[in-house]
Amino acid sequence: MKAEIIAVGTELLLGQVVNTNATFLSEKLADMGIEVYFHTVVGDNPARLEELLQLADQRSELIILCGGLGPTDDDLTKNVLADHIGVSLVQNAAGLEALKAFFAQRQTTMTPNNLRQIETLKDGIPLPNRTGLAIGCLYKGKKNNYILLPGPPSELKPMFIEQARPLLEKEFPTTEKLTSRVLRFFGIGESKLVTDLADMIENQTNPTIAPYAKPNEVTLRITAKTEDEASAKALLDQAESEILAKVGEFFYGYGEENSLVEVVVDLLKENNLSLTAAESLTAGEFQATLGKIAGVSEVFPGGFVTYSKATKASFLGIDSGLLEREGVVSEACAKAMAESALVLAKTDFALSFTGVAGPDELEGKARGTVFIGLAQRGKTTIVTENHFSRDRSYIRHSSVMKGLDMLRRSILNKI
Amino acid sequence: MKAEIIAVGTELLLGQVVNTNATFLSEKLADMGIEVYFHTVVGDNPARLEELLQLADQRSELIILCGGLGPTDDDLTKNVLADHIGVSLVQNAAGLEALKAFFAQRQTTMTPNNLRQIETLKDGIPLPNRTGLAIGCLYKGKKNNYILLPGPPSELKPMFIEQARPLLEKEFPTTEKLTSRVLRFFGIGESKLVTDLADMIENQTNPTIAPYAKPNEVTLRITAKTEDEASAKALLDQAESEILAKVGEFFYGYGEENSLVEVVVDLLKENNLSLTAAESLTAGEFQATLGKIAGVSEVFPGGFVTYSKATKASFLGIDSGLLEREGVVSEACAKAMAESALVLAKTDFALSFTGVAGPDELEGKARGTVFIGLAQRGKTTIVTENHFSRDRSYIRHSSVMKGLDMLRRSILNKI
Repeated sequence: MKAEIIAVGTELLLGQVVNTNATFLSEKLADMGIEVYFHTVVGDNPARLEELLQLADQRSELIILCGGLGPTDDDLTKNVLADHIGVSLVQNAAGLEALKAFFAQRQTTMTPNNLRQIETLKDGIPLPNRTGLAIGCLYKGKKNNYILLPGPPSELKPMFIEQARPLLEKEFPTTEKLTSRVLRFFGIGESKLVTDLADMIENQTNPTIAPYAKPNEVTLRITAKTEDEASAKALLDQAESEILAKVGEFFYGYGEENSLVEVVVDLLKENNLSLTAAESLTAGEFQATLGKIAGVSEVFPGGFVTYSKATKASFLGIDSGLLEREGVVSEACAKAMAESALVLAKTDFALSFTGVAGPDELEGKARGTVFIGLAQRGKTTIVTENHFSRDRSYIRHSSVMKGLDMLRRSILNKI
Repeated sequence: MKAEIIAVGTELLLGQVVNTNATFLSEKLADMGIEVYFHTVVGDNPARLEELLQLADQRSELIILCGGLGPTDDDLTKNVLADHIGVSLVQNAAGLEALKAFFAQRQTTMTPNNLRQIETLKDGIPLPNRTGLAIGCLYKGKKNNYILLPGPPSELKPMFIEQARPLLEKEFPTTEKLTSRVLRFFGIGESKLVTDLADMIENQTNPTIAPYAKPNEVTLRITAKTEDEASAKALLDQAESEILAKVGEFFYGYGEENSLVEVVVDLLKENNLSLTAAESLTAGEFQATLGKIAGVSEVFPGGFVTYSKATKASFLGIDSGLLEREGVVSEACAKAMAESALVLAKTDFALSFTGVAGPDELEGKARGTVFIGLAQRGKTTIVTENHFSRDRSYIRHSSVMKGLDMLRRSILNKI
């Protein structure tokens, strides 16, 4: 199926917002075997959007429109598409309930323009919005098919993955199915991974192997094209074992929506273990990352943010002499932070983070120098010295990911 | 002048690369008063690119092509454009010198395909590439004008700013310039803001007013089209004061790249005030948000993550009887958390966050119920009861933003 993606929004044409939606959708559609031939961005202008729809009808079977489903007058995508197809707009009952509940809970008055958000194309399949208010739609026409998605990525992504993708797979089944498996790696860069797997990647036919670099991790998507599930599984198993024979040391889990923190929290839960943290340069980012996981309270009672030298001493009781002598960017400080936190929080593990997020150096240590401590009940504390690169934000994220990986390996008795 | 931007590259259509070039160029062109009506991405396919050029000729006076100027077979943008216009390609002498010097310095042999990079359109104005090898071009046609730029942003950006922009200003002088000002709002939704400003937005001509919803905030971009800076400033000042007369209560700062946390950290620094936090449902996200700002250590010594009831008692010394009697999702708990943190961290302000991030309810309180405490040295503690919506992640982000706004208003003596 030939597809194209149309993003609607003057803010994109003014350079205020990057069109990451087109990138996200293209990656997902490519995985489904749907070929994307064009991306277009058009402003909040009905005539130009209609012109574009006429062109798209001639060249694509699936036309995905993103943005312009909101409550304001310049949100006109739905109206233009309805006129283009020649159908009316109808209110979506479930969306209306959600909208009313939203304003009731906020205890604020709903202005009438909000009702625009829950209108959808008559005879279209409404796509509920789990993370926002505007309802999406899949409309199957005689020749062309249309999908309407909201502009904010936090709404578009879950709506596509949870609603639109399963519907597309059901409504437009292919005899040869694509089955994918995603392997996730930490601690190896994309170029190294690709070099280590060069033979496999160069000779790939079925399954195909696609690496994607993400912040501080790399994923490999293996995709088999088969007629049945059993053959797909056999092909994927075979490829996976070849891959893990080469780079298994860095593999930490499966799945597109998985993450290192989820793997670690699951390991803690399965083994009935608990964790605290004392954070300096990460300033709470490690604990906030744990907090993303619902139910983490089972394994995480809380911890400390000791950003200054004074709070390292007062909150954790670290000897001021040690802090003066060794400096805060030191193995000794990381060790003391982790060991104090372990005792104070009465947990099985404690991670500590101390280092230089930048932009400037600290105590003569270069930006990116980070000591990460892992104290363990009844075992020797481990401290790693790391030299991360890029900017402040990336250094803090690298620290969080490395801490999670140290813990994962420790639970698995790998270190 | 009407313009459009065409990015050429199959990697963009596969979702492997984000089209940040279009965003960059759009922002720069908007500043020059050149209106961009379309962005398009097309793959490395001569027929589809030619089709697109025919369309672009009908709707745009300036057509900017990015990508596909390199040495490999799929770099075909220049050839397709030359055929489209009906001119030949010629070698650029300065580019050839630079190419030869590059390979001499690397002490490697130049393969013949590299010569493709220094070809340019006959009668076009070559654009030298300071950070790469491929030569760009500005071609002035009878009706349409074309600019060829390389795909890598590290080459495209300097070539546009240093070569293409001055040429455009010289070849197509304009009398009217666009000047923008961005106003940022917290505590008011996009639909409410637009309703409150309906008269202004409906009757806008010059300046124009464009609202944009971001997570937990709204920005308004006011753009004036004038011949000189003084008239632009007068128009923007007038519009701003009309806007602030209506929704000034929610205005917190200026600028595309600004944020509520930056405004708050600046206020703390300017007033020589310090801050700590005790976080339950946000689990460190508030403090991690502070940690994003370089130099925040001046005003933020650290704080607590008290996720469990036990750590609320042990880290902060909150009376267990209070926690049992009132529950952790309570005004009393938020008050006690903030007041304890203030004493322990010896700061001027302490924020506390306790509530229900979800997905499940807690202590009979609905998901989204969040108490935020603000303790202040020598003043009465304030606690707000909030009912946030959407998912776990959004509820936590809403809490962080509300806490920042409470602090901002308190510093400004607004509450």
